[in-house]
Amino acid sequence: MSATAQNETRTAYYERIARQHLAPLWESLHALVVSSPQPKALPSIWKYAQIRDLVMQAGSVISAAEAVRRVLVMENPGLPGKSAVTPNLYAGLQLILPGEIAPSHRHTQSALRFIVEGKGAWTAVNGERTTMHPGDFIITPSWTWHDHGNPSLEEGGEPVVWLDGLDIPLVAHLDASFAENYPEDTQPISRPEGDSLARYGSNMLPVRHEVTDPTSPIFSYPYERSREALDTLYRHGDLDPWDGVKLRYVNPATGGWPMPTIATFMQFLPKGFRGKTYRSTDATVYCVVEGKGTAHIGDTEFAFAPHDVFVAPSWLPVRLDADEDSVLFSYSDRPVLAALNLLRESRT
Amino acid sequence: MSATAQNETRTAYYERIARQHLAPLWESLHALVVSSPQPKALPSIWKYAQIRDLVMQAGSVISAAEAVRRVLVMENPGLPGKSAVTPNLYAGLQLILPGEIAPSHRHTQSALRFIVEGKGAWTAVNGERTTMHPGDFIITPSWTWHDHGNPSLEEGGEPVVWLDGLDIPLVAHLDASFAENYPEDTQPISRPEGDSLARYGSNMLPVRHEVTDPTSPIFSYPYERSREALDTLYRHGDLDPWDGVKLRYVNPATGGWPMPTIATFMQFLPKGFRGKTYRSTDATVYCVVEGKGTAHIGDTEFAFAPHDVFVAPSWLPVRLDADEDSVLFSYSDRPVLAALNLLRESRT
Amino acid sequence: MSATAQNETRTAYYERIARQHLAPLWESLHALVVSSPQPKALPSIWKYAQIRDLVMQAGSVISAAEAVRRVLVMENPGLPGKSAVTPNLYAGLQLILPGEIAPSHRHTQSALRFIVEGKGAWTAVNGERTTMHPGDFIITPSWTWHDHGNPSLEEGGEPVVWLDGLDIPLVAHLDASFAENYPEDTQPISRPEGDSLARYGSNMLPVRHEVTDPTSPIFSYPYERSREALDTLYRHGDLDPWDGVKLRYVNPATGGWPMPTIATFMQFLPKGFRGKTYRSTDATVYCVVEGKGTAHIGDTEFAFAPHDVFVAPSWLPVRLDADEDSVLFSYSDRPVLAALNLLRESRT
Amino acid sequence: MSATAQNETRTAYYERIARQHLAPLWESLHALVVSSPQPKALPSIWKYAQIRDLVMQAGSVISAAEAVRRVLVMENPGLPGKSAVTPNLYAGLQLILPGEIAPSHRHTQSALRFIVEGKGAWTAVNGERTTMHPGDFIITPSWTWHDHGNPSLEEGGEPVVWLDGLDIPLVAHLDASFAENYPEDTQPISRPEGDSLARYGSNMLPVRHEVTDPTSPIFSYPYERSREALDTLYRHGDLDPWDGVKLRYVNPATGGWPMPTIATFMQFLPKGFRGKTYRSTDATVYCVVEGKGTAHIGDTEFAFAPHDVFVAPSWLPVRLDADEDSVLFSYSDRPVLAALNLLRESRT
Repeated sequence: MSATAQNETRTAYYERIARQHLAPLWESLHALVVSSPQPKALPSIWKYAQIRDLVMQAGSVISAAEAVRRVLVMENPGLPGKSAVTPNLYAGLQLILPGEIAPSHRHTQSALRFIVEGKGAWTAVNGERTTMHPGDFIITPSWTWHDHGNPSLEEGGEPVVWLDGLDIPLVAHLDASFAENYPEDTQPISRPEGDSLARYGSNMLPVRHEVTDPTSPIFSYPYERSREALDTLYRHGDLDPWDGVKLRYVNPATGGWPMPTIATFMQFLPKGFRGKTYRSTDATVYCVVEGKGTAHIGDTEFAFAPHDVFVAPSWLPVRLDADEDSVLFSYSDRPVLAALNLLRESRT
Repeated sequence: MSATAQNETRTAYYERIARQHLAPLWESLHALVVSSPQPKALPSIWKYAQIRDLVMQAGSVISAAEAVRRVLVMENPGLPGKSAVTPNLYAGLQLILPGEIAPSHRHTQSALRFIVEGKGAWTAVNGERTTMHPGDFIITPSWTWHDHGNPSLEEGGEPVVWLDGLDIPLVAHLDASFAENYPEDTQPISRPEGDSLARYGSNMLPVRHEVTDPTSPIFSYPYERSREALDTLYRHGDLDPWDGVKLRYVNPATGGWPMPTIATFMQFLPKGFRGKTYRSTDATVYCVVEGKGTAHIGDTEFAFAPHDVFVAPSWLPVRLDADEDSVLFSYSDRPVLAALNLLRESRT
Repeated sequence: MSATAQNETRTAYYERIARQHLAPLWESLHALVVSSPQPKALPSIWKYAQIRDLVMQAGSVISAAEAVRRVLVMENPGLPGKSAVTPNLYAGLQLILPGEIAPSHRHTQSALRFIVEGKGAWTAVNGERTTMHPGDFIITPSWTWHDHGNPSLEEGGEPVVWLDGLDIPLVAHLDASFAENYPEDTQPISRPEGDSLARYGSNMLPVRHEVTDPTSPIFSYPYERSREALDTLYRHGDLDPWDGVKLRYVNPATGGWPMPTIATFMQFLPKGFRGKTYRSTDATVYCVVEGKGTAHIGDTEFAFAPHDVFVAPSWLPVRLDADEDSVLFSYSDRPVLAALNLLRESRT
Repeated sequence: MSATAQNETRTAYYERIARQHLAPLWESLHALVVSSPQPKALPSIWKYAQIRDLVMQAGSVISAAEAVRRVLVMENPGLPGKSAVTPNLYAGLQLILPGEIAPSHRHTQSALRFIVEGKGAWTAVNGERTTMHPGDFIITPSWTWHDHGNPSLEEGGEPVVWLDGLDIPLVAHLDASFAENYPEDTQPISRPEGDSLARYGSNMLPVRHEVTDPTSPIFSYPYERSREALDTLYRHGDLDPWDGVKLRYVNPATGGWPMPTIATFMQFLPKGFRGKTYRSTDATVYCVVEGKGTAHIGDTEFAFAPHDVFVAPSWLPVRLDADEDSVLFSYSDRPVLAALNLLRESRT
């Protein structure tokens, strides 16, 4: 049979099977089972200097109450229209003005809040409020009621901006989203501030505490403490050629991640640090806390400064340089990859 | 400000932020965080009586060697062009003719083979071959070399068709695909057939066996044994109002699933069984081994017969009736949901 | 101070503190914290040829009903009066005559039965009876009701002898013994024989089975199946220089040991096998199923034959030789040592 | 047969089997498998006021160097000659004088140090020293090099007394003791003081830290932090009718106990607390840090004051009353019981 005849035969056959919702694997196998990851997500950066005004303008475009959550979603240019910064992760900058409340709800999506600027606003989780300060890492785990608020101007409130990190695209992909609103704007407060940190965060646990789910019983990890740990380790001589000094946040009741779908990290790169190259199948979102430097991701290079957010897709080579002492917060879908035995790393 | 003016303001603002790859969450929040799953995948059935001829015709459309894997992919009508039967799972019917070989390769995707018709073909995994019989469940775990073959006509070979179940869409979504070809068509055989079943499948384990990964060390679960277990339990009076008699395949070294991303089940529904309704956030693909009946999935109803394949998306109500003694094999992404604490079930 | 004066001073001081229940560590430290284990238990053997008559005579010395359990306890000569074969383990030979019943009770001690001679007697556990055959391994886990019985002579009953292995000394040491008698001689039977093996022993599990405790849901491991697995592996070329072919029994729902305090093994040593030397901090009781050979334990050497029982204390070098194809069943306190991170092994 | 004749027959039989190291279970079964624990250990107290002088006198009876460890062992009156305070645990008061060193060694026994009086002495573990203060809880895990020292008088050293808690009797029972001396008196110091607490104790972990054994990577839990956590919880309204406010120390890398064989706790009982009764199969040693009250253990009643040590054996009812705000440190063999599925508790 001539090549043309064969093509025609095949085309006719493909049409016939398509009517039965069947497709020829041999035409797509090479694209489905690739020899190494070819992420559609692109290395990207959002420079805070360029977007801060837009974030603040959101305050006059819509109220927190009307918006429910007044957030500018960072959309990965490679994943347009998906509200996704990586295939599994969402990133957004949320603004809350003095006197506003973001009303209480809960959902199966896991959420983290990393405070970017401003202080004094609060997040309530499970009946306890925590006050926000820049650099604090706060979680609102899956299916926990949570609301946010800010004291009024009279009470000293100021605009507060934080980075929201969620697993929205993952939960959407998994068709596992459940959500509901609390009947009131704010949930009742049953425990004083600092309770969960005292109860679970001192390398001790209540003697009858039982681990019933993988989420951390402490929901606020203050920057003060994380920063001091980084600093101590740096002074003690730790400096990994790839990571500088890098710590991961833990669930103190298990040693695992604070939430089952999102890994969170904080790292210190001393002035002059020139990191070596690594790659991993988890995709990572970085948020600069302090300092300046350059992130090399794949063939792209980003100068970074405080509050900038940038993203490294799966398996692209990543290399970090610091021109000043720098602190980077980051989060990734590493627990997902690890739980499914699909985490692969390379350091060169 | 009038509603029109406000709309214009917002539209202008949206355009401005879009240039920075920012989007207003408040316009999409309701679609991103839904109150319960709204899967795009549709309940679907592939009736073997309608597609068997097409499967056999594939044998003349392309050779196994040219195709690498001669498979008709079952595309969920709700997920067109994605080679996906559910968001995480792939299903296809593979045909191998007497004398053919599907050459050796490995990939991070986990694969199962469920034998539909014909016997005598083989799958080789990790240096051991297993001979296929209808109803056998065979795994080729992530990153294991595997190849398939069929004895020649002279040696008694006959066309063999099996259902391929893989986590291709999941691994694609996670950007975690790695693959490579073996330098030869078939891998070298280092262990006689039946070795892994004797070694790991007798409720005993080699004394120095260490569990280093979550995949099962046995890769073939013969139908004879599974069918007998179902039958014994049925005779012993087991009959769940939802499931009939339902067993899950296990990794005997851990008690977990045979592979970390795919759950597999076999169930028996006696003649006259009228199942109650359940729903779950895992999506399930069924393959009928024996019997006839009806599957009610969401608002859809499918009459099923041997070798039919049908699919139940996340959270749709499922109800199974049997008009004859029936045996159903099924696989789902349950381990993914469970590992991420996103499995939710309801039985009513 | 002269040495004499110092001694007198110390002696007086020791008497003074003794009245306060205080003792000088420095006088006993060397004996308490030794550089390597110095077990009091001695390598020992009970030759069945020498004790079989005594076992059978027990049948006329006391009835099963009066004895509750008609067992001759193997007392380690190094642990006199303690009913212990090793510090944690108990071993005894139980005789049950046709028509007798050993009444139902339960206790926190875990028990295994390894059938030595005779067949047709039964053990009931959790509402299911299993019939005994030589070489079968049966468990009666902690706090499960269990009773044993033997058909009458008219029904074809014959004397049956089995090896009882329990963790009695361990539970005594831990002050953790609880026990109670069932109100009737035998517990009610709710499941037909073979149910648990069909349900849990086919590399499948009931889909809603939940692991709530560490004990195996199957309680009978037939010799037929274990022996065949050993044989297959031997034919497939397995031969470890220390162990020959050695399998461990597993809990198929976890991959762990069938019971949390006792490890159980079966191994095959081909004729002419001359094993290399190993040692371990678990202490092991062996029961010969088939064959003849020599066990070298520490400085002792035992010729072994079918049904002999011998014991290897902690850390003594062990070496096994076979003059005929031999099968050895064994049990040890390995799970205890492992759980407490005190297992140490050496193979030379 | 008359009863006398039967007795004679049995006696003769027992003598015959005894020569084969066999014993009749039916004579001892009731004593071996008891219906509830009957511990030989007795409730006991060591009143610090009565023994402090004796502890100090030890300083002139022997030097730390000669003693290796200058410790007065608290011997449970029910376990004489065994250097045991409970079947599994050891308790002793160690004295170290200014300028002394307790030389470096390691052993498989796990050890805790709870500082009773004096400050400024140090313990070195794994290349890091920690300075002692009253109420600090310090571990020297299994097989880690450790040494203790005290600055000279000139450097401000003062006598320091601490409670040593070890699993010596357990490890002896298990025949699992290994020990060796370090070639020098003190091990080399490679990390500054506070390193492990900064590295592992801030609810963060080094990103590449791998859990390879069950012992805590932090070895000092300062009283300051534990006391503050108790206080916060008490102010937040926690008060368990049995325990008051009770926390357990954790290994922050796993959420488990700091060491695999010993559980450690600290609890606060407010003035006037009258505890309800509980019992448990673990045996517990208490050390009073602050306050006064009464411990009711079985039929015994002990008035307690600071630095007193008292012990509650397995399964005896325990009830604690406080006449002043009281803080109790305690340790038990709970992880052993739990790992072996033999932990049972009752609260009434």
